[in-house]
Amino acid sequence: MVYYRNRFCLVGDYLVSKFPNNIFDIVQDDLVAVEQELYSIIQSPVDLVNDISVHLVQAGGKRLRPALFLLCARGGCPDHNKLLPLAVAIELIHMATLVHDDVIDDASTRRGRPTANARWGNYSSVLTGDYLFAKAFSAVAVGADKEMLKVLTDVISVMCEGEIDQMKESFNPDQDEADYRLRVAQKTADFIAASCELGAMAAGLDEREVVQVKEYGNAIGMAFQITDDILDITASAEQLGKPVGNDLRQGIVTLPVIYALKNSPDRDELRNIIIKQNMTDNDVKRGLEIIHQTEAIEYSYAQVNKYLQHARNILPPTLSSEVKEALVAVADFVGLRKY
Amino acid sequence: MVYYRNRFCLVGDYLVSKFPNNIFDIVQDDLVAVEQELYSIIQSPVDLVNDISVHLVQAGGKRLRPALFLLCARGGCPDHNKLLPLAVAIELIHMATLVHDDVIDDASTRRGRPTANARWGNYSSVLTGDYLFAKAFSAVAVGADKEMLKVLTDVISVMCEGEIDQMKESFNPDQDEADYRLRVAQKTADFIAASCELGAMAAGLDEREVVQVKEYGNAIGMAFQITDDILDITASAEQLGKPVGNDLRQGIVTLPVIYALKNSPDRDELRNIIIKQNMTDNDVKRGLEIIHQTEAIEYSYAQVNKYLQHARNILPPTLSSEVKEALVAVADFVGLRKY
Repeated sequence: MVYYRNRFCLVGDYLVSKFPNNIFDIVQDDLVAVEQELYSIIQSPVDLVNDISVHLVQAGGKRLRPALFLLCARGGCPDHNKLLPLAVAIELIHMATLVHDDVIDDASTRRGRPTANARWGNYSSVLTGDYLFAKAFSAVAVGADKEMLKVLTDVISVMCEGEIDQMKESFNPDQDEADYRLRVAQKTADFIAASCELGAMAAGLDEREVVQVKEYGNAIGMAFQITDDILDITASAEQLGKPVGNDLRQGIVTLPVIYALKNSPDRDELRNIIIKQNMTDNDVKRGLEIIHQTEAIEYSYAQVNKYLQHARNILPPTLSSEVKEALVAVADFVGLRKY
Repeated sequence: MVYYRNRFCLVGDYLVSKFPNNIFDIVQDDLVAVEQELYSIIQSPVDLVNDISVHLVQAGGKRLRPALFLLCARGGCPDHNKLLPLAVAIELIHMATLVHDDVIDDASTRRGRPTANARWGNYSSVLTGDYLFAKAFSAVAVGADKEMLKVLTDVISVMCEGEIDQMKESFNPDQDEADYRLRVAQKTADFIAASCELGAMAAGLDEREVVQVKEYGNAIGMAFQITDDILDITASAEQLGKPVGNDLRQGIVTLPVIYALKNSPDRDELRNIIIKQNMTDNDVKRGLEIIHQTEAIEYSYAQVNKYLQHARNILPPTLSSEVKEALVAVADFVGLRKY
């Protein structure tokens, strides 16, 4: 019990440090319960499965998706017994996709810590991802009705499609903003939208309100991913917990890159860097330089702000002021985060 | 339509050739419908996802799990609309685990055809596996109640644990039969048992009958995997669709190996081969020779036959003779198959 308690304090601190002004205060107790349940549900008689799963839970993360789910569920009168398993399922699915992403990208660090694949190899990491998917749906079996289960499974299919599409289009400079926005929706925004939608469904909001809350989540998700893509170019390696320009090196054509490819006087040089399958450190450095010399970052932040303004505006007027303020504070935070 | 029809004939032929005496005749129409639904459910707007998924469905396989599920469901009065999605979910889960296994093993062929990872790379294969998991649970949302969903998620967790345990214990000659049997249960038999159990649950059989049908499935699964492990040593590469001695090369200590490690006069030599992380072709050849010189194969087949006899005996007496005969024929076939 003490063991768990220490963990929670740590996680609590982590959450507070990632989300300033305690914007998730009203669901903090539930988030602590989610953390406890995450440790409980992943327990396995096979030590190695335990070790990897605990590593993944400890690696933390912002718990943004369950936090948004719980916040949105506060918009009505949810069956409290069903909330926790669903919040846990949402985070487990997120963790499963991250561990598979790290295998795929051959990533050695995430959030400044060694990845599961770097520490235990691809074999165990792929299987632990599958294990987490299974545990997620096991939790869903407790908390969700069939409509909710469908929302979750659809979102996983779409995420996989988005990731595969991204891989197919890597090192391809001929992509426009519409391609990018579709991919960001598939990769990131749809899942955050679904987390909010499921919260609204659990809360028993009416159909129109559920759609509005989902759209709020979609806008938050778009802004979140575009910010991620900006930070890959502007933040330091220490802030990111991974190398700067990592996306560029992998040939992932993000919004600032698309802007620079269209507007930079050195666009041909940038294009030639992107089509290289094996960029050198100097290529990446020069690519970032070309992007920085344009208005790409300002333009991208302007898009972030548009999404966030839409997120604030679309919230159902019927939400309690407490919930609404918290959801607006999330939008404010996403626009400000620097890492 | 013609497109589908051709496929089905092919698949039909395939089934017949794999399962002699048309033992799945009484569920053949349902199996054709499963095949059709598999092609339908995996359809994706992303071409690459489509291509890989279709490749995986076309790669065929025996469809043993959905066939057993459908057969067991004939033991009572199932809601027919719910059967098809569940049968599809079972096969999709099986396909997802196979595609991840092939990534993990870096396998280049399965059933004589190139694997998805060999053709499209690990990135797309891991994600397509996840995509198939999601589609499976999407189908489950239609056909299953919460109890059934729990059976399926538990079985996936256990399969992952079994595979991770197998990896951890590879190249370790100090394993006994109990370790082996537990792993075979986790890796293979539990899923086949669950397929039968779900059929019995869908049929509305009583609790005692459900347990008996599940135990039948468990025995079939144990016999099936031990036979696989025997064939890895005795069959030809053409019959297997993969190299002979593949398990041995990967350091997987199967029942014939355990027998030989205990009973061969050359057990120290075999032991030294197994602990090598990089066996040469000659090592594998010599290892197989040592195993063949013992009674390992006869002993292993005796275990198969014990399981199959138990499978035949444990079937509920209340099953219709048609269903019972078909289930007994499956047991007969598992004991006879040569590839």
